[in-house]
Amino acid sequence: MNAQIITIGEELLIGQTIDTNSAWIAEELNLLGIKVTKITSISDKKEQIIETLDINSNEANLVIITGGLGPTNDDITKHTLAEYFDSELVLNEEVLEDVKRIIGARGANMLELNINQAMVPDKCKVLRNPKGTAAGMWFEKGDCVIISLPGVPFEMKAILTQVGFPQIRQKFKTPFILHKSVHTTGIPESQLADILKDWEANLPEKVNLAYLPSPGDIKLRLDISGENEVELHEILDAEIEKLQHLIPDAIFGYDNDTIEAVVGKLLLINGLTISTAESCTGGRIANILTSISGSSRYYKGSVVAYSNEVKQEQLDVNASDLEKYGAVSEQVARQMAEGVLKKLKTDIGIATTGVAGPTGGSEDKPVGTIWIAVASKKQTFAIKKVFGNSRLRNIQNSSSFALNFLRKLLTENQL
Amino acid sequence: MNAQIITIGEELLIGQTIDTNSAWIAEELNLLGIKVTKITSISDKKEQIIETLDINSNEANLVIITGGLGPTNDDITKHTLAEYFDSELVLNEEVLEDVKRIIGARGANMLELNINQAMVPDKCKVLRNPKGTAAGMWFEKGDCVIISLPGVPFEMKAILTQVGFPQIRQKFKTPFILHKSVHTTGIPESQLADILKDWEANLPEKVNLAYLPSPGDIKLRLDISGENEVELHEILDAEIEKLQHLIPDAIFGYDNDTIEAVVGKLLLINGLTISTAESCTGGRIANILTSISGSSRYYKGSVVAYSNEVKQEQLDVNASDLEKYGAVSEQVARQMAEGVLKKLKTDIGIATTGVAGPTGGSEDKPVGTIWIAVASKKQTFAIKKVFGNSRLRNIQNSSSFALNFLRKLLTENQL
Repeated sequence: MNAQIITIGEELLIGQTIDTNSAWIAEELNLLGIKVTKITSISDKKEQIIETLDINSNEANLVIITGGLGPTNDDITKHTLAEYFDSELVLNEEVLEDVKRIIGARGANMLELNINQAMVPDKCKVLRNPKGTAAGMWFEKGDCVIISLPGVPFEMKAILTQVGFPQIRQKFKTPFILHKSVHTTGIPESQLADILKDWEANLPEKVNLAYLPSPGDIKLRLDISGENEVELHEILDAEIEKLQHLIPDAIFGYDNDTIEAVVGKLLLINGLTISTAESCTGGRIANILTSISGSSRYYKGSVVAYSNEVKQEQLDVNASDLEKYGAVSEQVARQMAEGVLKKLKTDIGIATTGVAGPTGGSEDKPVGTIWIAVASKKQTFAIKKVFGNSRLRNIQNSSSFALNFLRKLLTENQL
Repeated sequence: MNAQIITIGEELLIGQTIDTNSAWIAEELNLLGIKVTKITSISDKKEQIIETLDINSNEANLVIITGGLGPTNDDITKHTLAEYFDSELVLNEEVLEDVKRIIGARGANMLELNINQAMVPDKCKVLRNPKGTAAGMWFEKGDCVIISLPGVPFEMKAILTQVGFPQIRQKFKTPFILHKSVHTTGIPESQLADILKDWEANLPEKVNLAYLPSPGDIKLRLDISGENEVELHEILDAEIEKLQHLIPDAIFGYDNDTIEAVVGKLLLINGLTISTAESCTGGRIANILTSISGSSRYYKGSVVAYSNEVKQEQLDVNASDLEKYGAVSEQVARQMAEGVLKKLKTDIGIATTGVAGPTGGSEDKPVGTIWIAVASKKQTFAIKKVFGNSRLRNIQNSSSFALNFLRKLLTENQL
């Protein structure tokens, strides 16, 4: 049971839009046990759409297309599919109802462009769109199901989640594919591969392993497929237990875990509140922590102290220490963490101060240098790390690194 | 002159990694006047790599491949290409030098895995990697150039920028393609299409138009290709001038402009400093503003006031107003903006308070309700907006909306 994904839009081919739809669809299909074998991004040209559809519908049992269903003239997917399936466009009353509701909720007037959105090919089954005016369409060609969806991510996701996936699940019965991801941090990829080489060599034949590095996180992904779901789980669980013994400190989570969710859970379990004092990370740690729903139970607030004046006045950093050691120093990081903890009355304060770059580095403190401090009422811990030259990567890496430092201290009950 | 991109990796097909490489490569190739006609993501299986390479090298003059060059066993691209080009793997001294330098800088020991990275097919020209251990490879097959690169984005970018693109430019001479993007905000897509329909109908035949919606921003992209670069610029500039007359308030920038860069420039030009007081946006506005290098010239700091206690104690929000009107209210937003301006001694304060969701909404203040305030020393402005149900989209949209509100006030000299 294979699926392929086609994303349509000139914006993908000139690089103005990153294709995030494919990854989301692929992940969801995998959870249904449907293997994605190819993702193709093409332009909104009729000939290329038809040619790609011909190839994909021969290679796969399911083809999911996104893009080109908007109300404007550059959107040609619906007309192309109508032609491909020798179909007439007819007004669909249910879709018209959806369009009216959406346009009404936006407080806008119905335009001819909007009404055209309710015209759909008569040979498709409509997949209603709860969030927008472009309906999804389900076609069948021999044994292959072809689904066309709007390219706007939240509309595409709403259609698939509410009506698309349930119908796909009903239509296809497939072998089970299981993925397990182990998130690690703090060990570079080639060192990790060296530590794990014997374990890797002895993996059961059915198990595939991949190393997936991203800033501050190397994911180890284990895949297995077969008929017996329970047995597959047992095999992977046994391998993950071996990993836990090989690299106990480096593993911070599994599957969809993120460092902010893991830290959030630890704070909640320990009944601790937190505040952040950020210089070089500019509010990113606060932003990451608050991306978690329910974070107000442990996160109280932050002081982003970009200027030295704010560090002194809002966080009580000592002016002479700022002068003597510089803003990027262990002393200042410690005082920031302790300052925010006192000021915002939390159990823990976490602080960052560094040179994000690309300018502002010196021989002693090159671009990428960062000091992190974590303060509790008992004690303050500080650590230094030197990242690279990219401003955005430094901000991202410093934030993850700081949260991971906090995670370690929390799991070791040091706070 | 056409190019195609192949990205290799099981992680792309199971949706654990979003393919960001293709968009970056496509954008850069377009700037060189090379049109990308297809992007394909496939698994790291030899047969599929060879099959895709066969098709793409027939359809395009240039094929760029990323992924599968790492040191671990799941990385098979190099071996597959060696086989495809009937080539032996030989030790390349220059690459070995690069590998030693990179491993040395990481403070790690050379492993056999690392030394293997210096083995490259004898029929390729090496494209040295300044940032990692996997070298780029340039093959030729008839009229088609095939370039293989590591999948790690910053390594791939470094190789192309430093050696790949200059060599591509030298090899190919191509017609010129010009893109211009106009960023708009505040008008929904179908209304925008209606306002612009006469203008669109009268566009010169050579000009293509696309609407590219993303949260808080609808981009209008105009494309044109031809021989005479000056003439192409003149044609597009004339159309953009017409747009400026049709939707003067909605346009906030062009091409790679972002709202944070536009606002940053306006603050700098006007010699104004800013601080932020964020509740529902949780530090995101600070994070966005400080993503710009040099932002310390106008951005001083923030108070992320997630809890009511922090709003009162750090921003001097009136306790009885908090009680009477609630945290999500015009009164509280205004006091937050005025409070942070005074506290951090800046010319402007910008504040957000809202219900990010998914819980916490009420009939009066449903999830997605947000109040924004912008204070100067002269006056405070406030505006309310209701977004949707998604927490992350509400945080993103509120942040963009707040910055755009500030942009309008700045351009109208109201602050």
